[in-house]
Amino acid sequence: MAGNSFGNLFKVTTFGESHGTAIGGVIDGCPAGIHLDMIAIQNEMSRRKPGQSDIVTQRKEPDTVQFLSGIFEGLTTGTPIGFVIKNANQKSKDYSHIKDVYRPSHADYTYDKKYGVRDYRGGGRSSARETACRVVAGAIAKQLLKGVSIHAFTSSVGKISINQPYQNLDFSKIETNAVRCPDDVIAKKMITEIKNIRKEGDTIGGTVTCVLKNVPVGLGEPVFDKLHAELGKAMLSINAVKGFEYGSGFCGVEMKGSEHNDIFNEDGSTKTNLSGGIQGGISNGEDIYFRVAFKPVATIMQKQKTINSEGQKLEMQGRGRHDPCVVPRAVPIVEAMAALVVADYYLLNKITKL
Amino acid sequence: MAGNSFGNLFKVTTFGESHGTAIGGVIDGCPAGIHLDMIAIQNEMSRRKPGQSDIVTQRKEPDTVQFLSGIFEGLTTGTPIGFVIKNANQKSKDYSHIKDVYRPSHADYTYDKKYGVRDYRGGGRSSARETACRVVAGAIAKQLLKGVSIHAFTSSVGKISINQPYQNLDFSKIETNAVRCPDDVIAKKMITEIKNIRKEGDTIGGTVTCVLKNVPVGLGEPVFDKLHAELGKAMLSINAVKGFEYGSGFCGVEMKGSEHNDIFNEDGSTKTNLSGGIQGGISNGEDIYFRVAFKPVATIMQKQKTINSEGQKLEMQGRGRHDPCVVPRAVPIVEAMAALVVADYYLLNKITKL
Amino acid sequence: MAGNSFGNLFKVTTFGESHGTAIGGVIDGCPAGIHLDMIAIQNEMSRRKPGQSDIVTQRKEPDTVQFLSGIFEGLTTGTPIGFVIKNANQKSKDYSHIKDVYRPSHADYTYDKKYGVRDYRGGGRSSARETACRVVAGAIAKQLLKGVSIHAFTSSVGKISINQPYQNLDFSKIETNAVRCPDDVIAKKMITEIKNIRKEGDTIGGTVTCVLKNVPVGLGEPVFDKLHAELGKAMLSINAVKGFEYGSGFCGVEMKGSEHNDIFNEDGSTKTNLSGGIQGGISNGEDIYFRVAFKPVATIMQKQKTINSEGQKLEMQGRGRHDPCVVPRAVPIVEAMAALVVADYYLLNKITKL
Amino acid sequence: MAGNSFGNLFKVTTFGESHGTAIGGVIDGCPAGIHLDMIAIQNEMSRRKPGQSDIVTQRKEPDTVQFLSGIFEGLTTGTPIGFVIKNANQKSKDYSHIKDVYRPSHADYTYDKKYGVRDYRGGGRSSARETACRVVAGAIAKQLLKGVSIHAFTSSVGKISINQPYQNLDFSKIETNAVRCPDDVIAKKMITEIKNIRKEGDTIGGTVTCVLKNVPVGLGEPVFDKLHAELGKAMLSINAVKGFEYGSGFCGVEMKGSEHNDIFNEDGSTKTNLSGGIQGGISNGEDIYFRVAFKPVATIMQKQKTINSEGQKLEMQGRGRHDPCVVPRAVPIVEAMAALVVADYYLLNKITKL
Repeated sequence: MAGNSFGNLFKVTTFGESHGTAIGGVIDGCPAGIHLDMIAIQNEMSRRKPGQSDIVTQRKEPDTVQFLSGIFEGLTTGTPIGFVIKNANQKSKDYSHIKDVYRPSHADYTYDKKYGVRDYRGGGRSSARETACRVVAGAIAKQLLKGVSIHAFTSSVGKISINQPYQNLDFSKIETNAVRCPDDVIAKKMITEIKNIRKEGDTIGGTVTCVLKNVPVGLGEPVFDKLHAELGKAMLSINAVKGFEYGSGFCGVEMKGSEHNDIFNEDGSTKTNLSGGIQGGISNGEDIYFRVAFKPVATIMQKQKTINSEGQKLEMQGRGRHDPCVVPRAVPIVEAMAALVVADYYLLNKITKL
Repeated sequence: MAGNSFGNLFKVTTFGESHGTAIGGVIDGCPAGIHLDMIAIQNEMSRRKPGQSDIVTQRKEPDTVQFLSGIFEGLTTGTPIGFVIKNANQKSKDYSHIKDVYRPSHADYTYDKKYGVRDYRGGGRSSARETACRVVAGAIAKQLLKGVSIHAFTSSVGKISINQPYQNLDFSKIETNAVRCPDDVIAKKMITEIKNIRKEGDTIGGTVTCVLKNVPVGLGEPVFDKLHAELGKAMLSINAVKGFEYGSGFCGVEMKGSEHNDIFNEDGSTKTNLSGGIQGGISNGEDIYFRVAFKPVATIMQKQKTINSEGQKLEMQGRGRHDPCVVPRAVPIVEAMAALVVADYYLLNKITKL
Repeated sequence: MAGNSFGNLFKVTTFGESHGTAIGGVIDGCPAGIHLDMIAIQNEMSRRKPGQSDIVTQRKEPDTVQFLSGIFEGLTTGTPIGFVIKNANQKSKDYSHIKDVYRPSHADYTYDKKYGVRDYRGGGRSSARETACRVVAGAIAKQLLKGVSIHAFTSSVGKISINQPYQNLDFSKIETNAVRCPDDVIAKKMITEIKNIRKEGDTIGGTVTCVLKNVPVGLGEPVFDKLHAELGKAMLSINAVKGFEYGSGFCGVEMKGSEHNDIFNEDGSTKTNLSGGIQGGISNGEDIYFRVAFKPVATIMQKQKTINSEGQKLEMQGRGRHDPCVVPRAVPIVEAMAALVVADYYLLNKITKL
Repeated sequence: MAGNSFGNLFKVTTFGESHGTAIGGVIDGCPAGIHLDMIAIQNEMSRRKPGQSDIVTQRKEPDTVQFLSGIFEGLTTGTPIGFVIKNANQKSKDYSHIKDVYRPSHADYTYDKKYGVRDYRGGGRSSARETACRVVAGAIAKQLLKGVSIHAFTSSVGKISINQPYQNLDFSKIETNAVRCPDDVIAKKMITEIKNIRKEGDTIGGTVTCVLKNVPVGLGEPVFDKLHAELGKAMLSINAVKGFEYGSGFCGVEMKGSEHNDIFNEDGSTKTNLSGGIQGGISNGEDIYFRVAFKPVATIMQKQKTINSEGQKLEMQGRGRHDPCVVPRAVPIVEAMAALVVADYYLLNKITKL
């Protein structure tokens, strides 16, 4: 209700501010008896953590997750899985200069107006640090979804984008470069672009594409909880996201029905997949694919005019170590949220028929 | 949980198949003491109903809503508002030819696989007829939101689109033409396009843009229930929707932070509004605007190859009276879903502070 | 949230006032493919309906349920089941004399204070008429729970109570007398007592005991949603209920652990069952039994002093046809609520393990 | 859904096993701007903690709560409040002897059957240690409810019970004796009884009565979420509870309507209060009072016959330090759960009218 839980049956609730003692969460509804691969979980954390390459923020946070409950002798017990991630980087004084300042296109102003009080240290609850908890939960969801593959990758940075369908790409290359783009040539251009942008003290947006293979037929709960509606909400809830499309997406609006319809093969699969693996809100067994738009990071290393909480004009400039482009580190977050949705809907679908 | 409810505090649950006895729903959580304008509600129904113009389906359904509870002497009583809309158009035999047929890019296949049983008459639960109930609930939500204006309109049909910012448009023109486009010149082109498409026995997609003015500051529940995340889910849950973007949307990904940031005025308003009226998932008082992508209707009046539930190949052709373009009738549905989200979040925000 | 829904996965939402057009509801989450016995559903309705015997209210309401959706060719389709029950007995003028009067120990005062507006005709939403919808939903839940038997019966009326353990009773006798007590001798005394009370223009309380057999092991969701906690809430939500106990109940508080503990047989069953079939909030396969306390009906045919909404003193007297004792008609309601809880928890338990 | 959350708007989710690293939880939906008295919170913890007197378990656990988020400069921020309580008493070897043993009237058997895997160390998730988290959340709820007083006390131990109405009692005496009974004479008898029981190696049940004063009129959400229904569920979810009654409770069933009805005073208050402060599921401003039945603790220091997970017979005897009577330590838990319900319903009621 208050917005810090996600999921129906496989449900994660998160807590924590960027510069508080710790962030963490509770995963309730994870089925019992799943053998958890702890190294795989930590690997997902490492894909998201700061300081992992020279094109992301150089903050140093180990981002080690500690599980407190719900796991016994390596197995999930069906009881809630509590976890915490300590905040290594609690330098409150770094943020004293923005205590009363509303940073442009950040959440400072809206949090202040909504809550009347705000942890002003580094974004507090509105910081993307919170997404580390999503990655923990998503990593467990992935382990529940045996057989389903989930691959997200950077499909564009600014105006540089992959120009071929995802079917041509080799997903094993995603983790071979810092920008997480499976097209080597484009990846290099993206990395150069990000470095140039950073030199300008500026930031840039981008898109992440995600492809899910082998999702069972039947997931999705019409009419309001269609599978793509929940995926859309999941993605739009990630910091800096401005748009979501699946299957033919916004391109589909220019097409005719005779072009857009996916004709069946005799086995129920389809010859084309403009539907994006979902029909009537329910997965049909084809690949599910979607694209997520990320705006440029609001914190820039240039002087900006702004106001403080008294409505006084002032000038400010970003300090510290920020991402010039959020997309490379967003890739594992997109995957995590996708895994959470699919795991939840997989469980929901178990009671559709007896 | 099973997908037929929307909202947290202002919550609508719908039921009904396109060719059953009736569709209807329950609105629970509508505050007591609201004087309901019944004519305004029925007017919204008329904006959605079939047969309203020569560019939509020519089916005749009066779509009269009957309220059964929760309203007494013109006022909401705080108890659940039950309502039904009778199905005038119950000609089951019209649909016998598709009993075992999976229509391409419809939900026939997925419903059959998910539920093992299916009301095959005209789409059953997957029919867009269900959205009539959303319009009823949305019309009540609008009356709760005094002072907030919600205007949706057709911003593109196929490749024909409005080429000016919404700020230049006169929303009072939306209802003056059949396609619900406030740009007269473009509207005519759209209408011609839809008529041509229909002559081909084909269908076409389009986009709806929605603008909300005077939404109070502070609506939205971070981190998972950000205002735009819920708006996105609401829109993606409408039949035929393939994408959602708000504020700068997919265009924003090509921008730099220095271009994209919305600089504050001294009163807390912003000079630009690429944020789309929402920052950190919370409304900031600026206009909220978003765009929704609709695919072309799957039912076309051309022969298509498909299969039946036995996996046998066959040929089929759409019959009856269908929309060549769903967008004009989708406009009130988009508004209704927007109103439901904002009303719900308006109530949620009432308990943020004591 | 607003209180008119019950259940997690098998969820019923009800609407309707006693003297509005109709009452009804939506059952969402009923699994697909269940063949519904419509006669069995109507039979449950008849067990609850007014006028069924000479010890209950003589109002005449046919209480015929009409299903509007979610059932096709006799099977549940997995889509929401909408239903309505028309109000035959809409004589609004009968209630004009209580328009502004707060009847003692009714909900008139609290509804007025809470909502500021109230449908004063016959109790409106606070009338026990609403429980007819629970019986519809419960009758469907019973059909989902093949193999589980649910038997409620009148275990006391005023000071007259069954003095033997339920194991000695023949449940097939419950429906053989008007008071629904399986002990013939006690039943006669109860009926006489109720008739005497009615002659006095008074009312009397009583208890209903409910026994569930063959509930599968494993139902219940610790720690907050323990099976008996949800059963307790379900019962306490029925009009006029003042208490709930299961297993040893309030008697258990006087016992020692060495007396109270249920010793295991080798097959996991227990020699005694003071636990009432639930341990740690989870069913253990033994009989689940509980007892529900109903207060005397507040409407009496005697003069009472009271006040109106202006705080003025006045005298009033119940009119019309009311139950002198609510317990006989409460028996099917108790069963319905028990069935709803067990069906819901049966579905919930399906995702405890993969 | 999976049972570890309580509340609608003021919602607590707990995690943790008795012998894991830590227990803890997340409170989501606490309004922003509440100044928290941390000493008061820790005082509530001390009322529940083991080792506090010579009639409770002599285990030593400091039960210090550490808050991780949601509080900044002494104020709640409206973001989720995460907290942990470390388990000081993690001696896993103490419990190796019960690894495969099903203790009579414990949850060992049902957890094993439900989940297929179980943390067998000291009860794991089914241990009453979990209630420490409820006390944390309840202590915060109490601070939200300014003006409302909540007093629970021990009203009976075994057959020894207070024989006067609560109105005659001096609640300031509750904390003056180890058994938390405000009647000095009865308190002494209770303490003697508990000591005698402990010498026998046995345990005994009891009841807790709770009285809430100054609850605002209007709390409660008919029809399913009546205030007393939620209070009942809250109490029944506490370990060892077997029954709940409010107002006249089970005694009310023997009364006539003419005796039971609460006649109004001119100001809307009532001359009697057999309703227990709730009419039609909504608080009416009178005292809310209810009684909760606790069974004798299942762990006894006597030899008992039982079985293990292989179905083999064996003998076992409780070891370690257990409560001979759970009631004295249950008093703050009852208050905490009552506070959670009232705080939640207080917030819910804020949106009944605009």
